[in-house]
Amino acid sequence: MTDKTDTQRGEWPELAAFKQRLRAFVAERDWQQFHSPKNLTMALAGEVGELLELFQWLSEEESQQLDNETLQAVAHEIADIQVYLANLSDRLGIAIGPAVEAKMKLNAEKYPADLARGKALKYSKLPKA
Amino acid sequence: MTDKTDTQRGEWPELAAFKQRLRAFVAERDWQQFHSPKNLTMALAGEVGELLELFQWLSEEESQQLDNETLQAVAHEIADIQVYLANLSDRLGIAIGPAVEAKMKLNAEKYPADLARGKALKYSKLPKA
Amino acid sequence: MTDKTDTQRGEWPELAAFKQRLRAFVAERDWQQFHSPKNLTMALAGEVGELLELFQWLSEEESQQLDNETLQAVAHEIADIQVYLANLSDRLGIAIGPAVEAKMKLNAEKYPADLARGKALKYSKLPKA
Amino acid sequence: MTDKTDTQRGEWPELAAFKQRLRAFVAERDWQQFHSPKNLTMALAGEVGELLELFQWLSEEESQQLDNETLQAVAHEIADIQVYLANLSDRLGIAIGPAVEAKMKLNAEKYPADLARGKALKYSKLPKA
Repeated sequence: MTDKTDTQRGEWPELAAFKQRLRAFVAERDWQQFHSPKNLTMALAGEVGELLELFQWLSEEESQQLDNETLQAVAHEIADIQVYLANLSDRLGIAIGPAVEAKMKLNAEKYPADLARGKALKYSKLPKA
Repeated sequence: MTDKTDTQRGEWPELAAFKQRLRAFVAERDWQQFHSPKNLTMALAGEVGELLELFQWLSEEESQQLDNETLQAVAHEIADIQVYLANLSDRLGIAIGPAVEAKMKLNAEKYPADLARGKALKYSKLPKA
Repeated sequence: MTDKTDTQRGEWPELAAFKQRLRAFVAERDWQQFHSPKNLTMALAGEVGELLELFQWLSEEESQQLDNETLQAVAHEIADIQVYLANLSDRLGIAIGPAVEAKMKLNAEKYPADLARGKALKYSKLPKA
Repeated sequence: MTDKTDTQRGEWPELAAFKQRLRAFVAERDWQQFHSPKNLTMALAGEVGELLELFQWLSEEESQQLDNETLQAVAHEIADIQVYLANLSDRLGIAIGPAVEAKMKLNAEKYPADLARGKALKYSKLPKA
């Protein structure tokens, strides 16, 4: 899949460019053989596990005031997650940007501001308009 | 945090723009109170769980040939994950783009192409140069 | 919560006994303060992430033939997961044994052998009797 | 793997008995073909994702005072996780009970009560005796 396909599918330019560099990085190492979508999903989940471990004993308040060392570690995990997400979407021909825009439209419908304000409830539990 | 801060920190332009839209969406619903980094990390992990469930009984080969319905579902989960990742990084003032670039540089050093080619081993197990 | 409560709720005896030892271990270290169900859930998920990482690049076949080192590592993670599961259920007063028996009954109804045989489909997609 | 093997390996009796019932349940439905350790790990992680979602917007305090409906849902997920953990360990010939006992011994050494009391730090960061 060339970046031209990504541009045609409306992928965010920077993400499309990154996916192309990532493709080259992977090809250089002959790693595509390990990168089935199934495997990439497991790898993504593994990184998310590492991210969770950084927060597990912190209170919500402490999680807002991370020290430098923890903040750095969190940034590293966020990067790992983004890389696997880009890789997985690239393997499946999914443009993340448009998928995000579509999801935000759906979210706006499921959670109208006037009904959802201040509530963390699932939309099925929101009071009807 | 304004998008100007994100641009100063070198965030990918569309991600920076999206984070700004997301901030407005959240503020409109008075949801920031639920969005401690700790909570956002849990929500991100919850979505990754949904993504895993779509692949759990598929073979690696089947995961490369998803039917339309499953592909759509995967796209939805990828979008959800990207949204929470953007939200979390925004709350912590982390620019994803630069973090990804830094991680890729590190990966290139940990996994030199000539040593890592065709191997899925962790870098500590690669043959020494 | 004493083990007598667990026995009353029908918890599997060794699990009940283990929960009691775990309670003492935690109390000795004054760790209950960190062990809200929310935190324990995150810790559990963190360990599951470590388990995923052991399998992510293995094929399904390779995952059936683990070398000794990997098998040991998997056993360690399974233990960690069981410990957090016991801790979490203990904090919430949930007896795991009875919950498992109830779930198995439900699974037998959702997935009758004659309809579900050889199929990995979710029950809603099984052919109707 | 018969339950006799589990008893020989010192598995907790109730867990050994359950694993045997689970084996029959799976065999009846010809599901072993889907139950590679790799797949079972993904399924386990999927259930943990569902558990996380039940807590993601709750504060630590709220997570200690769950309403009946949420408590029921949590019990269901705990059961699902236990079932997959039993299944995975059975496929790999791992006795969970002994693995847990071994891990608790290790934890007692890594986190001596007098040094670890009241601290959520990783053992490498504990003050030296």
